[in-house]
Amino acid sequence: MEVLIMKKLLAANDSVAAENRRYFGSRGLYVINLMGSPGSGKTTLISALAKSLGRPVGVIEGDISSSIDAERLQREGVRSVQINTGGECHLDAQVIREGARRLDLTDSVVFIENVGNLICPAEFDLGENFRLLAASVPEGDDKPFKYVPMFSYVDCVALTKSDLMEAVGFDSGNFRKGLAAVSKAPVFEVSCRTGAGLNELAACLRGK
Amino acid sequence: MEVLIMKKLLAANDSVAAENRRYFGSRGLYVINLMGSPGSGKTTLISALAKSLGRPVGVIEGDISSSIDAERLQREGVRSVQINTGGECHLDAQVIREGARRLDLTDSVVFIENVGNLICPAEFDLGENFRLLAASVPEGDDKPFKYVPMFSYVDCVALTKSDLMEAVGFDSGNFRKGLAAVSKAPVFEVSCRTGAGLNELAACLRGK
Repeated sequence: MEVLIMKKLLAANDSVAAENRRYFGSRGLYVINLMGSPGSGKTTLISALAKSLGRPVGVIEGDISSSIDAERLQREGVRSVQINTGGECHLDAQVIREGARRLDLTDSVVFIENVGNLICPAEFDLGENFRLLAASVPEGDDKPFKYVPMFSYVDCVALTKSDLMEAVGFDSGNFRKGLAAVSKAPVFEVSCRTGAGLNELAACLRGK
Repeated sequence: MEVLIMKKLLAANDSVAAENRRYFGSRGLYVINLMGSPGSGKTTLISALAKSLGRPVGVIEGDISSSIDAERLQREGVRSVQINTGGECHLDAQVIREGARRLDLTDSVVFIENVGNLICPAEFDLGENFRLLAASVPEGDDKPFKYVPMFSYVDCVALTKSDLMEAVGFDSGNFRKGLAAVSKAPVFEVSCRTGAGLNELAACLRGK
């Protein structure tokens, strides 16, 4: 019984996602759904990219509670609205519709920072143009083998905190092997601490 | 409508969890539900504790897919069974009942390694005796402020990968402040790389 309802929920979500996509297009918005584990560095990555994309940037921040990330981005001069899911483990198209209207931007790049979760967000189309995954080096090089739905869902992987590779014994070859088995998404090794790789990732996003 | 069904599912789960608790008691099992984000170091922590608890240890391994962690523990001589949730973002009491029967141990400590997720597992009682959270230093010191349901759900926090504190600029005081606001759970700073703090955590668990 719950399966049927889940299907109904997903169908309702997909129809709102299609509306969102039209709305984004009509406003000249390029929308990036950024997903990743808790602490994978999503907010820090948005903050760094906002400086180098060469276009106005807005952010729809998703968290189960708190507004720590949106407040931080606002302090840095990045327009952002906070969505609290009240416990829900992912964003859906409905809350993004509301968030986008509150953000009220045109001709901009909009990042959706999804709830920190490597599983549930991969089931919900938000109407985004691009799906970016922040996978952090300290999480380990085996994650593409273990979280297949997420790694196969995204268009691009930012391998964040790359400056910690040696300290944690991260095997980049093993990570890429796991990813290649389930996805054609390119990988950018980035460190917001040292700045490494950020220009390459920004150039890739600018090209979209 | 889905809320009602969720309540029904949770009630069904809780009744099986109560059965599990009786089953564990009758077999002399002390069961620890270990939760945490992807890559927070749960398997490594189990592996380290298995050597220092002074009692036989078994593991019920939960992942959405793959059996990497159970195979690793088996290679290290730790009896373990793998549960694949097939996409589900948490374990429930029903699958633990099945896992415990397959593990078929008596007079042991049993670790349940939950699915890597800082949100969903905090809604499902598995019948465990103790709830342990692995929160890793690279995830950041703000996590207790952002993932309140999980941090308030657990009996004890293992702050893992503590050797990386300086490298990532982790503020232990801020972490403890966030935790204290929602929970009385003690914190053990541990590093499986250096061995720091493991004896203290093992002594705490032995005392239960």
